[in-house]
Amino acid sequence: MDELKRRIQEQGQVLPGDIVKVDSFLNHRIDVPLIQHVAEDFAEKFEGCGATVILTVEASGIAIAFALAQRLGVSMVFAKKGQAKNIGSNVYAADVHSYTRGNTYGVYVSKKYISPEDRVLIVDDFLANGQAALGLLSICEQAGAEVVGVGIVIEKQWQRGSELIRKLNLPLYSAAVIAAVEDGEIRFADDDDEV
Amino acid sequence: MDELKRRIQEQGQVLPGDIVKVDSFLNHRIDVPLIQHVAEDFAEKFEGCGATVILTVEASGIAIAFALAQRLGVSMVFAKKGQAKNIGSNVYAADVHSYTRGNTYGVYVSKKYISPEDRVLIVDDFLANGQAALGLLSICEQAGAEVVGVGIVIEKQWQRGSELIRKLNLPLYSAAVIAAVEDGEIRFADDDDEV
Repeated sequence: MDELKRRIQEQGQVLPGDIVKVDSFLNHRIDVPLIQHVAEDFAEKFEGCGATVILTVEASGIAIAFALAQRLGVSMVFAKKGQAKNIGSNVYAADVHSYTRGNTYGVYVSKKYISPEDRVLIVDDFLANGQAALGLLSICEQAGAEVVGVGIVIEKQWQRGSELIRKLNLPLYSAAVIAAVEDGEIRFADDDDEV
Repeated sequence: MDELKRRIQEQGQVLPGDIVKVDSFLNHRIDVPLIQHVAEDFAEKFEGCGATVILTVEASGIAIAFALAQRLGVSMVFAKKGQAKNIGSNVYAADVHSYTRGNTYGVYVSKKYISPEDRVLIVDDFLANGQAALGLLSICEQAGAEVVGVGIVIEKQWQRGSELIRKLNLPLYSAAVIAAVEDGEIRFADDDDEV
């Protein structure tokens, strides 16, 4: 998606550890029209998938999930991180390892909010090592719900998540696919419009 | 706001510790049309406030902040919790004590995203003990930005935040004000449309 790639080039910062920081529009300050355009792009790519619910994980996935849920006329659910006291024991849970932070955390979704009848469209801001996406996929599997697609704002193709998720043969679409970061420069893949 | 109060009555659960759990529409599963209606209600109440940015704190404030930012045509910023590695040291920070969880956590906003020229409208899902709102107010004060209002989805009037924030003489509007929880029953205040 050209508008997004342009913004990443203009405002993205490459930090040590191949971190691409885009907090001016995606995950700290949120540029509302841009996120709506990404949601439009997702909606077009996943047209006809019959999603009944959008699933993401707190916190940076919530804005794009909300915008997509608006566009598709469905509700959204965000998985909570950690040992949320109030969520009760009646949850689907998965452990997620963060390579960036070097720790493992839990993600939880109440059993009330994903059912075997649901067709789930998973979205997130980044696909890096893929562990958060795998956690959400595990939650859907526990719920007996069908995952109809995975929508990612920015995919870091050189990290392990890209291959991990692609080999599951799920419809995966990333609005921007970064092929590599070389000498602080961001290079995009050409295949960013594949589903 | 009647639609919201009805939903709280119908779906809210009162848990020990006077916790009002509304995760079926506000802070786990998100009912998108309802949140949009609350944002409309906020927009009407804060009409003419001249907000340049909506500020909230992750994670449960993000959806309502996004919907309000859409409605007002401004961007939004969500304060991050904890020691976010990637945010850098160039931040405004405040400590927030959680009475519910019995711990203290940090909230941070990059100095790039709130400036002295900003007119900030703070929103959050709950006003309980008021500590998160005070943290956001402190961040705005550090930034030299003017706070033009505080919009809350659900205010728990009997907890200390209600008085703490009200005595600051800021325009405060809560879409639903719960006066008390008695024997598991939720009783609303009548003055829920005051700004």
